[in-house]
Amino acid sequence: MAARSIHHIGVAVGDLDEAVSTYERVLGAAVEARETIASQGAEAVALLIGGGRVELLAPLDDDTPVGRFLARRGPGMHHVAYEVDDLRAELARLDSEGVELVDREPRTGLYGLQVAFIHPDAVHGVLTELVTRG
Amino acid sequence: MAARSIHHIGVAVGDLDEAVSTYERVLGAAVEARETIASQGAEAVALLIGGGRVELLAPLDDDTPVGRFLARRGPGMHHVAYEVDDLRAELARLDSEGVELVDREPRTGLYGLQVAFIHPDAVHGVLTELVTRG
Repeated sequence: MAARSIHHIGVAVGDLDEAVSTYERVLGAAVEARETIASQGAEAVALLIGGGRVELLAPLDDDTPVGRFLARRGPGMHHVAYEVDDLRAELARLDSEGVELVDREPRTGLYGLQVAFIHPDAVHGVLTELVTRG
Repeated sequence: MAARSIHHIGVAVGDLDEAVSTYERVLGAAVEARETIASQGAEAVALLIGGGRVELLAPLDDDTPVGRFLARRGPGMHHVAYEVDDLRAELARLDSEGVELVDREPRTGLYGLQVAFIHPDAVHGVLTELVTRG
């Protein structure tokens, strides 16, 4: 398999509105979508920066994955997502090769995308997401 | 201004060969270039992952920027680089707006690219690089 491209970079922030404003001003970003993901306890904004995409994530409260990330490491890069054609086939292949997965089955992520995470320990410390169009 | 795209994601790793092998196996990455940057005390491999690019960085010794990053945070995402058309104009604009820069003048980065870094404090904790073709 080959991932087709970088779908987005996920960035954890404390103040979502302030971060959106910074990315607009510094990098000419444009807001593509904004969504609250109650199941993950986060609010997300997808930004388009030219042909690239950055997903800003702010925690809905401290006891959430993004809240704990911020408490431990402060704001910064959180994950990278690659687009693949067949997510189920990809997860089956990785699982059969012993790659540690967070999600063995696709789940619905932001904007209706099907997503799954590979454990950071399997990718030299980088939380890695695979994404396919829903 | 608008950045034109994400040029690459920089990832700090301890073992460069092992990381290259992991990215080939897990994400179908292909090596684009490999270079030692003595001035920064790092060895770098550029990987193409479909239309995306990941730059793996390993320190030449502990007392280098990447070596200190690894000691403090462990392996993981180190920076993100955006491609811009006119790097000098962009740096002048950011400087005039009071955005904290690491480099006020372009310098030569990997593969002959002209690069400059924006301080992470100016971009919510993300070390941000601007890149233009040489």
